[in-house]
Amino acid sequence: MKSLILAGGSGTRLFPLSRKQFPKQFIKIIKNTSLFQKTIQRALHFSKPDEIYIVTNKDHYFLVKDQLGEINADAKIIVEPAAKNTLPAIYLGIREIVKDSGRSTVAIFPSDHLVTMSTSMTEAFSDAEPLAEKYLIIFGVKPTSPHTGYGYIKPGKKIGSGFRVAEFVEKPDHNTAQKYVSKGYFWNSGIFLVGSDLFFAECRRYAKDVVAAFDQPPKEAYDLEEVYGRVPSISIDYGIMEKTTKAVVIPLATAWSDVGNFNAIYSVLEKNDDQNAIIGKHVGINSTDNLIISERLVTTADIHDMTIIETMDAILVCPRSSGEKVKEIVRILSAEKDDRVNRHTTVHRPWGSYTILEDGGTFRIKRVVVRPQHRLSLQMHHHRSEHWVVISGTAKVTIGNQEYLVKQGESTFVPVKVKHRLENPDTLPLEIIEVQMGDPLTEDDITRYDDDFDRIG
Amino acid sequence: MKSLILAGGSGTRLFPLSRKQFPKQFIKIIKNTSLFQKTIQRALHFSKPDEIYIVTNKDHYFLVKDQLGEINADAKIIVEPAAKNTLPAIYLGIREIVKDSGRSTVAIFPSDHLVTMSTSMTEAFSDAEPLAEKYLIIFGVKPTSPHTGYGYIKPGKKIGSGFRVAEFVEKPDHNTAQKYVSKGYFWNSGIFLVGSDLFFAECRRYAKDVVAAFDQPPKEAYDLEEVYGRVPSISIDYGIMEKTTKAVVIPLATAWSDVGNFNAIYSVLEKNDDQNAIIGKHVGINSTDNLIISERLVTTADIHDMTIIETMDAILVCPRSSGEKVKEIVRILSAEKDDRVNRHTTVHRPWGSYTILEDGGTFRIKRVVVRPQHRLSLQMHHHRSEHWVVISGTAKVTIGNQEYLVKQGESTFVPVKVKHRLENPDTLPLEIIEVQMGDPLTEDDITRYDDDFDRIG
Repeated sequence: MKSLILAGGSGTRLFPLSRKQFPKQFIKIIKNTSLFQKTIQRALHFSKPDEIYIVTNKDHYFLVKDQLGEINADAKIIVEPAAKNTLPAIYLGIREIVKDSGRSTVAIFPSDHLVTMSTSMTEAFSDAEPLAEKYLIIFGVKPTSPHTGYGYIKPGKKIGSGFRVAEFVEKPDHNTAQKYVSKGYFWNSGIFLVGSDLFFAECRRYAKDVVAAFDQPPKEAYDLEEVYGRVPSISIDYGIMEKTTKAVVIPLATAWSDVGNFNAIYSVLEKNDDQNAIIGKHVGINSTDNLIISERLVTTADIHDMTIIETMDAILVCPRSSGEKVKEIVRILSAEKDDRVNRHTTVHRPWGSYTILEDGGTFRIKRVVVRPQHRLSLQMHHHRSEHWVVISGTAKVTIGNQEYLVKQGESTFVPVKVKHRLENPDTLPLEIIEVQMGDPLTEDDITRYDDDFDRIG
Repeated sequence: MKSLILAGGSGTRLFPLSRKQFPKQFIKIIKNTSLFQKTIQRALHFSKPDEIYIVTNKDHYFLVKDQLGEINADAKIIVEPAAKNTLPAIYLGIREIVKDSGRSTVAIFPSDHLVTMSTSMTEAFSDAEPLAEKYLIIFGVKPTSPHTGYGYIKPGKKIGSGFRVAEFVEKPDHNTAQKYVSKGYFWNSGIFLVGSDLFFAECRRYAKDVVAAFDQPPKEAYDLEEVYGRVPSISIDYGIMEKTTKAVVIPLATAWSDVGNFNAIYSVLEKNDDQNAIIGKHVGINSTDNLIISERLVTTADIHDMTIIETMDAILVCPRSSGEKVKEIVRILSAEKDDRVNRHTTVHRPWGSYTILEDGGTFRIKRVVVRPQHRLSLQMHHHRSEHWVVISGTAKVTIGNQEYLVKQGESTFVPVKVKHRLENPDTLPLEIIEVQMGDPLTEDDITRYDDDFDRIG
C-alpha cells in the first residue's frame, strides 16, 4: 500500500505557536514530536519508506526534510508550486505514484491531525483495502462529542464493515451536531483509501478542469508551475467525494482530533493535579484547568480555564473557550503587515536555521546553525559587515580569495562588499553567533553568486 | 529646607517588573520616569540640589546614580551597609545633614510612592514649616476610597491647618476602613517634616537603642558597618510617631498612591477607549479593563479586568484583583532559588549595565553598555574566553600587555587566563556584544586586580 501525506497546509489558527512559514503540522506539541512526524510514523505501519510520498509546497520543503531527518525517516517529497487545496495535491501525488509503480492502492493522510495509532486502525485499513478498487473509501470516526467544528458523514446501506456514504455535512450547529451523534453519523477524518484507477476515473467524471490542467497536451518540457497556474483550488471533499456515487465510509475506532484550536491541544495533553496542561516552566497560585505553553517562566494567580501561549516574540492570553478568536488577531496583525504572523524568531533554511537574538536597528545578532556537510550560498552584502564567532563545531569560511577553518572559540570577520561563504565541513552541526552591522540593515541586502539550493537571482 | 529621600526599599510586590536588585522605586512606569526620579523632581520644589540627601543601600547605589544622571539631577547619596527599616535610615540621614549644615528642618520623602505635585502640596508644606520645631509633622492624605492596604491617622485637636494625631491605625478591614473614611481619618502618606533638634530629642526619649547604636563612644574610626550591626530594624512610625505626644498631621490635598500592587498601577495609568492601560504593543479582541505591560507583542481575546506583565524572562497573568498573590509566587520562586527573583536580564553595574541575550550553557551572549569615561575592573577569567564586537562608540581595551582602541564595527578577543580591561574613553556610551565561551561558565569566575569601584577580593 502506498501512503500519500498532505503537508502543504498553512493555517495560523494556533498563532503564536503556528506562523505562515511554520504551520500547525510542524509544531512539536506532544512529547517533542510534530503532528507531521507522527503522521509519517503512522504511515510506516502501512507502507515501506520508499512507498511514502509527501506533497508539500516550496516554503515548507526544508522543514519537511529537517523533520524527516529528526525521526530518521525517508520519503519522496513532491513540491507544489502553489497551494491549491487538497484535490490538486492528491492528483499530483497519485500521478507520481503511478508513474513510479503503476496501478496502486493509496492511503491519503492529512499531516495536521492527531490520530492515535491502534490495532483497530490496522483492522479498519484491512477491511477497507479489498473495497478500494470499487469504492472511494473515507474513514469515519465515531464522535465522542457533538463537535461543531468538524464535518459529519451520514452512513447509508451497509457494505462490508462500512457503509455507503448517504451524505456529507459541514460544521453543524450544536443542536444539529447532537442529532447527528445520536443518529450514528461519523466525523470526517480526512483519511482516504483509494485505488488509483478508480480515483482517476472519478476525477475525469467530476473534476474535468483538474484533469485538464494536469494532462493537457504537454509542451516540450512538463511545466508544473504552468499546471498550477491553471488548476482550480478545490478540496477532494467538494470536488469528488460529495459528487461520486462510490463513496464508502469505514469506521475508525481510534482517538482523533484535528487540533484546530488551543482547546483541542489542551484536551490531548497530559494534565497535572490541578488539571493544567503545561509545556514549559509554570508557577501557579490557585490556577486550574489551564493550557500553558511557554519558552520562559509563566506565573499565574487565580487563573482558570485559560490559554496562555508564550513564544520568543509574541504572547496569547485568552479563555480556553475563545480559541476561535485567534484568527481575528492574526487578521489584524496581517493587516498591519506584522511579520510575526509569517515567521518565528527561528527561521528554517535549506542549510539549517537561524534565530534572531536581538535586532538593534543598526546591528542584529543571530545564532546560526549549519547542518553537517551543508553550506550557505556564496554571497555578498552591500551595506553590512558580519562578525562570526564559532560556538560549536568547525566552520570552513571563504572570505574574498581566502579559504580557511575557524574552530570552536575562534572568530572571523566579513567586511562590507566582500564575497563570502559559510560551510560546515564536519559531521556535527556548526553553531555560530553572527553580529551583523550596517545601515540600512535589511534581510534582502544579499547578492548570491553560487547556491546549492538554486536561490540565485 | 532639606530633603531626605528614602530609596532603600527592596520589595518584589510588583514581580516580574520589580526584582530584589531592581525594586519598585526604580521601575519606569509613568512616561518613562521612575517613582524615585519623580520623588527627586518633587523634592526640588522644596530644596536646592545640594540640600537633597538620598539614603539607599549599596546594592542600589549605582542605580540611584544612573537614574539621577538620566534626569540631570545631583544629590548627596548616603549608603547604608544594611537595610534596617526607616528609623535608622532617617537617623543616619538627619545626622549627616546636621553635620553639614547644623540645625535643620528636614522633609522626608519615601521614593516608592506616587504623589502628584500641586500647589496644595506647597501650601501644606508652608503650613507645616512653622510647626516643625515644636511638633513632628506627618502629612495625611484625604482618602478617596476605603483602602484596606494603607495605614490611617485619626485626627485630634486642631493645630494650625492640621490636627494633633489622636491615633495611628494599621491596615483595617473593609468595614473599619469605611468607618474611618466617614469619620475624617487620613491616609498615612509616609511623608514627614521634622526639626532636627526635636527629632533627635524624641529619638533619645523613645528610641534609645537606635541612638546608642549610632552615638556610643566612637573608636578611632567611625565604623558604619559596626553601627548597622547593632542598630535594631525599626520603622519611624513604630519607633517614634506612635509613641510621641508631639505628632501633628497636616492634610495633603493631592493625589497619592503607594503603588503597592498592579491594581494601583492600573488606576494611575492612562486608559484607552476599552479602559485598557497598556505599556507596549497589544492586539486585543473584546478585551477591556486590563493592565498590560510588555516588552514584546501581547495578544488577547475575551480578557477583562486582568493583569498581564511580560518581561524578557518572566510573565505574570492574574486578575487585577489578585495582585496581592504576587508575593506568594515570589516566595515559591525564592524557595526554588530561582535567580529571576533577584535580577532582570538587564543588570546594572557601577560602570554601566549588561543584558543577557542568550545563555547557552557553554556560551553566553551579552550586550554590554559602558558609560562615558568609565571602565570595568582589570580582570581575568580562569575558564572563559570572550569575543568583543563594538556596535557603538569606541572601546579602549587592555589585553595582556597590549592596549589599543577598538572602533565601531571592529572586534577583539580575550583568551582564557589573560588579564584584560574594557574602557570607554569617549563622551558617548560604548556598546559591545560579548560572546563568552567556557566550561564551566559562571559569573563568579572573575579575579579582579584593579577596580575603580573597590570591588577587589
